[in-house]
Amino acid sequence: MPDIIILGTIGIDRLKTPFGKAENVLGGSAVYAAYAASFFSKPGIISVKGEDLEEKELHFLKEKGVSLEGVKTKGKNFRWAGEYGKDMNEAKTISTEINSLADFQPDTPETYKNAKYLFMANIDPEMQLKVMNSVKAPELIVTDTMDYWIKNKKEKVMEAISKSDILILNDQEAKALFQEQNLVKAAKKALQAGLKAVIIKKGEHGSLLFTKNEHFSCPGYPLENATDPTGCGDSFGGAFIGHYSKSRDIRKAIVYASVIASFNAEGFGLENLKKISHEDIEKRYKEMIALRSF
Amino acid sequence: MPDIIILGTIGIDRLKTPFGKAENVLGGSAVYAAYAASFFSKPGIISVKGEDLEEKELHFLKEKGVSLEGVKTKGKNFRWAGEYGKDMNEAKTISTEINSLADFQPDTPETYKNAKYLFMANIDPEMQLKVMNSVKAPELIVTDTMDYWIKNKKEKVMEAISKSDILILNDQEAKALFQEQNLVKAAKKALQAGLKAVIIKKGEHGSLLFTKNEHFSCPGYPLENATDPTGCGDSFGGAFIGHYSKSRDIRKAIVYASVIASFNAEGFGLENLKKISHEDIEKRYKEMIALRSF
Repeated sequence: MPDIIILGTIGIDRLKTPFGKAENVLGGSAVYAAYAASFFSKPGIISVKGEDLEEKELHFLKEKGVSLEGVKTKGKNFRWAGEYGKDMNEAKTISTEINSLADFQPDTPETYKNAKYLFMANIDPEMQLKVMNSVKAPELIVTDTMDYWIKNKKEKVMEAISKSDILILNDQEAKALFQEQNLVKAAKKALQAGLKAVIIKKGEHGSLLFTKNEHFSCPGYPLENATDPTGCGDSFGGAFIGHYSKSRDIRKAIVYASVIASFNAEGFGLENLKKISHEDIEKRYKEMIALRSF
Repeated sequence: MPDIIILGTIGIDRLKTPFGKAENVLGGSAVYAAYAASFFSKPGIISVKGEDLEEKELHFLKEKGVSLEGVKTKGKNFRWAGEYGKDMNEAKTISTEINSLADFQPDTPETYKNAKYLFMANIDPEMQLKVMNSVKAPELIVTDTMDYWIKNKKEKVMEAISKSDILILNDQEAKALFQEQNLVKAAKKALQAGLKAVIIKKGEHGSLLFTKNEHFSCPGYPLENATDPTGCGDSFGGAFIGHYSKSRDIRKAIVYASVIASFNAEGFGLENLKKISHEDIEKRYKEMIALRSF
């Protein structure tokens, strides 16, 4: 029985950054988030994959204790191609093939329904709402979104947020969603919408936490060899909920999330995340402490 | 006798931001830096002003203990007009009238020549070199620069840097000067040029310190009402050297610099800096500690 339910996409990506390219790379918000969460707890995925993606390609997730019981197989897999410019702060979408995601009806397996922690990773907000409603008594719902949904289904995004406890999104998304250039003001609007906390991701510049009574500023780990930012936001969210579900310490969970996202950026796709150990994570966490002591 | 020598400009600015405009505002790198430094120590300015700028306009600096002995008066004052877009991260220069700065020959008063701390604020690097060489036994030289000099006098900028201990510049300038998109790599190149430390300012995202053995990441204070970023970089540099000259604690000095720059952003020109007290500074410094504890 998983501790955390993660709803999101399973994708096949084509990636290009100033440091190289990669084709047919397994990706998607649920894959990155679940792999990241698995360092700290036992996640279960709700998603859909295509028949063109073989079961064995997801085997490494099972080995990390991730439940795939909620993964359906249907039609052709969701595919995304993206490119990053010199500054690597934002992906330019080259092409998107929605495929089997188009009419995906997420079903929550019985064994998932008692989970206390939900991470609604980036996916259609109507699917997020359906899954949120299917879990019996969630203690904490963390929701992510992206520009595409903010542009095309803003009302549903706001509805999903109103049922969530914590919203995680990046700075551009926060500005767009709350129509506010100033992040402090955008965060205030988010809290007025009923959230307990908002976490704003700023890529290499770290992340900010806003609650009614506190600010927290988490530094970005200074990376000399960032090669591909794909999945950094998703692995941040997954690691956050994974750690938080055990520690109940929101600041520490954000720092661990930042550490995991920084490792993610150091390889194409999941390449580097697959290599790291708990020792590596602890070492970088300690560096984060040193990085910000004064 | 001043503790710190600050070389920089005295300007008359016309400013436009999404939050308003202001004309005939006293500015310039030396003015912002000296005012900021004066919270912590006794700076003396080397600069030139025009005959169109009355002595009494600089009286508030004297009241804060700033020496103006090194300020010449000649011709028409340097004038700059700048505009900031929605994100307020970078100024667009609308017009520049160099005027009396054009053939300014900085002379170092005798009473300045024993100073131990020098801040070479943004100005022609040849003037920076001349002043550096005029001081008898400086213990610490901190140098700032800007895109204009990097583009037009890069060799002289590099020569000034080679004679400095600490370089302070913003992220765009670091990328341009060291032709390196990655800030960690840019900082390494700076350290290879012989510097003891590089401080990279990132506006609202805070600042980074790099030395041979350490990284430090200082958060930006989350501002809800940033109205005009003019002079934030200069006041950061001035506050840094002002605090460092007393504390000899580079990290604390950066945090105080960040605090002063954040107050500076909350008003047009020097407007808000003129209002704050030591109590306000200490209060915000404590907030910075809370902001980053985990």
